[in-house]
Amino acid sequence: PYSKKGTFILKCFLSDWNGWGYSDSRFLFNKKGQAEFTGKRYRLSGLILPSLKDWFEGTFGANLQHKSPATPTVNLSAVAPPDLNEPFVEDLKAAGVAMSHDPEDRVFRAHGHCLHEIFALREGRIGRVPDMVVWPSCHKDVEKIVELACKHNVCLIPYGGGTSVSSALECPREETRSIVSLDTSQMNRILWIDEKNLTAHVEAGIIGQDLERQLNERGYCTGHEPDSMEFSSLGGWVATRASGMKKNIYGNIEELVVHIKMVTPRGVIEKSCLGPRMSTGPDIHHFILGSEGTLGVVTEVTLKIRPIPEYQKYGSVVFPNFQQGVACLREVARQRCAPASIRLMDNEQFQFGHALKPQVSSIFTSFLDGLKKFYITKFKGFDPHHLCVATLLFEGDRGKVLQHEKQVYDIAAKFGIHYKKHLCVCVQDLGMDYYVIGESFETSVPWDRVLDLCRNVKERIVRECKERGVQFPPLSTCRVTQTYDAGACVYFYFAFNYRGLSDPVHVYEQVEHAAREEILANGGSLSHHHGVGKLRKEWMKESVSGVGLGMLKSVKEYVDPQNVFGNRNLL
Amino acid sequence: PYSKKGTFILKCFLSDWNGWGYSDSRFLFNKKGQAEFTGKRYRLSGLILPSLKDWFEGTFGANLQHKSPATPTVNLSAVAPPDLNEPFVEDLKAAGVAMSHDPEDRVFRAHGHCLHEIFALREGRIGRVPDMVVWPSCHKDVEKIVELACKHNVCLIPYGGGTSVSSALECPREETRSIVSLDTSQMNRILWIDEKNLTAHVEAGIIGQDLERQLNERGYCTGHEPDSMEFSSLGGWVATRASGMKKNIYGNIEELVVHIKMVTPRGVIEKSCLGPRMSTGPDIHHFILGSEGTLGVVTEVTLKIRPIPEYQKYGSVVFPNFQQGVACLREVARQRCAPASIRLMDNEQFQFGHALKPQVSSIFTSFLDGLKKFYITKFKGFDPHHLCVATLLFEGDRGKVLQHEKQVYDIAAKFGIHYKKHLCVCVQDLGMDYYVIGESFETSVPWDRVLDLCRNVKERIVRECKERGVQFPPLSTCRVTQTYDAGACVYFYFAFNYRGLSDPVHVYEQVEHAAREEILANGGSLSHHHGVGKLRKEWMKESVSGVGLGMLKSVKEYVDPQNVFGNRNLL
Repeated sequence: PYSKKGTFILKCFLSDWNGWGYSDSRFLFNKKGQAEFTGKRYRLSGLILPSLKDWFEGTFGANLQHKSPATPTVNLSAVAPPDLNEPFVEDLKAAGVAMSHDPEDRVFRAHGHCLHEIFALREGRIGRVPDMVVWPSCHKDVEKIVELACKHNVCLIPYGGGTSVSSALECPREETRSIVSLDTSQMNRILWIDEKNLTAHVEAGIIGQDLERQLNERGYCTGHEPDSMEFSSLGGWVATRASGMKKNIYGNIEELVVHIKMVTPRGVIEKSCLGPRMSTGPDIHHFILGSEGTLGVVTEVTLKIRPIPEYQKYGSVVFPNFQQGVACLREVARQRCAPASIRLMDNEQFQFGHALKPQVSSIFTSFLDGLKKFYITKFKGFDPHHLCVATLLFEGDRGKVLQHEKQVYDIAAKFGIHYKKHLCVCVQDLGMDYYVIGESFETSVPWDRVLDLCRNVKERIVRECKERGVQFPPLSTCRVTQTYDAGACVYFYFAFNYRGLSDPVHVYEQVEHAAREEILANGGSLSHHHGVGKLRKEWMKESVSGVGLGMLKSVKEYVDPQNVFGNRNLL
Repeated sequence: PYSKKGTFILKCFLSDWNGWGYSDSRFLFNKKGQAEFTGKRYRLSGLILPSLKDWFEGTFGANLQHKSPATPTVNLSAVAPPDLNEPFVEDLKAAGVAMSHDPEDRVFRAHGHCLHEIFALREGRIGRVPDMVVWPSCHKDVEKIVELACKHNVCLIPYGGGTSVSSALECPREETRSIVSLDTSQMNRILWIDEKNLTAHVEAGIIGQDLERQLNERGYCTGHEPDSMEFSSLGGWVATRASGMKKNIYGNIEELVVHIKMVTPRGVIEKSCLGPRMSTGPDIHHFILGSEGTLGVVTEVTLKIRPIPEYQKYGSVVFPNFQQGVACLREVARQRCAPASIRLMDNEQFQFGHALKPQVSSIFTSFLDGLKKFYITKFKGFDPHHLCVATLLFEGDRGKVLQHEKQVYDIAAKFGIHYKKHLCVCVQDLGMDYYVIGESFETSVPWDRVLDLCRNVKERIVRECKERGVQFPPLSTCRVTQTYDAGACVYFYFAFNYRGLSDPVHVYEQVEHAAREEILANGGSLSHHHGVGKLRKEWMKESVSGVGLGMLKSVKEYVDPQNVFGNRNLL
């Protein structure tokens, strides 16, 4: 409720360095040791969060006296000079395409938001970065750039919003050619809106929040709200198979696209018409969706749009435990009445959510005492160490929303208690400044495996941390963020206090690797919407079978035989 | 209402010869010249249809005295002896796979249901047919067959229900290898039903009606009801991207599948888990869906299932004209409240539907007079030469169905009149025995192009028929059969009296070709669900762009470099 942008709040708490998010919006602990959220952008902004210190110190064994400040600005002197392909640069100049080899521009486009990327930046370590950045202003520019890249054999890496969490933007160390970051940010126009068919044709560099704002001004929306929507781009959504919070109404990105135009070294790929559904061989959109920048650049997309919903309503359901919560979500999915969004947080996230509340009564002597008193009163018999909460968002015509609400809360009453206030959904703010690091990862899994998978993965994280010398128990927590007919999306977060570890990021990565193995062993998918990038590439063959991977490679070899799109994701 | 199986009724009227459908269910004109529908399988069965003769003769200028009877049985002596690959046959025998090179078995699997295929059969003309038929009994058998086919270089053509209308099963004349029809009909078991996740794992050779019946016995359904479901197979649905009548609730085949297993010359392709949604590169299911037998054999599929709906209700809305009908369907789609099925017939189909009514009052002197009287009374001011009708099917819990009905009929009231009786949806029964031939084809198109496309294509058919020497005006008619957010599926039917034409099938094909060009020129897709086969192959490059086609070819070359799956569809 304070901000739907949990991921953003995570990110902006991670570091002083403005590699992601807004520099004016971050957490800090003030001189009294109280947490504050700065800036004016979010509902939490400017507020004091009295419970957060308690929670933070209690959960991580962190100490506000022990700080590990970031390098205040990027150490640009550590950036290697660019390896420019001069004939390419000359031809580009002649074509009038904007470009830069300024170190800051290059560093900014060399990373996404994996922990190791952020951590390296805040320590001032900079690896291979693109040698230059180009800014096409339209589809035609992209065609020109790709043509010249083929001609001069440079490596192109498309850059949208830079929000990937899969090492997708990492420059391959083994790349010997000049690396050019193709930044789509100037291709950000809505080219037309078709009110008869409810579609909009949009340049792929547009950022989520800009797209929604401009459509809203015309009375429409796409309804696509990935957590990253303040920064991620339309082209990025297509390239990674993005999922939005409100997919139950609007669909995931594959259900939202009507038409995609992509420039590849082999030429432009697109369908010839806007028919809503076809059987003309395998659907070529699905060759593009999820291609993660390995085949070409998505330049324009026709998307479905909807009239802005008349009415929105949030709500919560409190459950005695996670099992009951999952059973409730499963029943809602079975009855096919899921609201726009329904998300179930486990007990750890629930406690964290409470720690973020600005208005906790001052008579409580400690955070947990306060929680206990509150829940013993409100939800008789619910143990605050086990209870968990689902947050719901209904959207549509007012009458239908109210009807829909009733249907869902009638189901929920069998499993928990409808609580009219919207309990906090904002999760995962971690204090890298105080030796705490963490990240999130996700999977999709059949319904009957959800509980086992959640328990096993969370336990595995705790065990792995211990075995690898982490001195305090980690935060190991999950939420169910999407429901489908046959299964759900589960999001895990883990974080730990890394004091005493010589290479905390390596430890983090080992634990995450083990957690991923545990996910796969419990019937979970390699990814629900984060994608593969380079981080999860080792499991691709297992995930889609050798023949599946071979098919993907054969497409790559046909479309881009020179490997101009050389980010080396996925394959 | 008499039968949902319009296509079946079409097919069984076409010919005496039992190449498709049940031999006990067909139309005939009795000695009094009254139409009867034989057999006991359908609601029309055993009934006299007094209006049909009038309609038939009036529409086509046909004459019941002029018959063009079919060859009563297939002329098996016209079947060329099989060209067997003996080492392949020996190895298969050793592997214990059932097989045949009986001429009847081979002919039966040499055709789908294109007009030219049926017409050739009824005239006793038989072209290239498979040299043998094999019947694998399970996935492992298919692996063995494909392995041996590669080893001995024979051509495999997978055969499911044999209902294709795209020349997909036609044996390529230029094929010099032994052609083996791989009939999946013995792979017809439901391997498991998972009630927790609401999925069923099924062998791909199962026929639609058997799948539904067996699931029904357990309290479930897939809800997938293509018009062909009495004969078409699960594997065929996957291979052609099938669409079902009730897709608004259950989804088209791509939304129904959770997991697909396919045997290719390169090995088995399948995902490693049953997660409901993934972002692990391009979705490999979409490499299989629509591959039309060119890559391998679909052997097993995990499908979503649903509890059998408590309640079903049919209804109709009568509109003064087609424009109002389309406007109504568009508004229903805009408000996202389409019932399980909603289909709009144009005036010509409406008239035909009435001709099929068994209970038309005997006081009417002619079919059209009867119609006029009825509609002038019932729907004041609606011209029977322009009115059209939408048929609706609601499905679900009783309470919700009634609520849903109200919502839809409230919208419909702005465009037409809700008519509680279910007006006939059974369309297209053509009398090849009386020199009348015809077929159907379909497209998908954005909403704002629906009216122009329908008018232009129907007019084009009439014009082309005339120019090509057809002596009577053809029946040229359409219906909107599916609604989507951004467009609709339109089905065209045309038929004509071919007396006096020396090569009626060629004329038919020329007209259909022109109609397809007209569809494409009006923003329609190459196909909505019939697929491409060999019939529409020439337009593939235009439809998916050269690069798109190249991608499809690159997958084919990787998966099947020898072209073992040599049906030559699509590419």
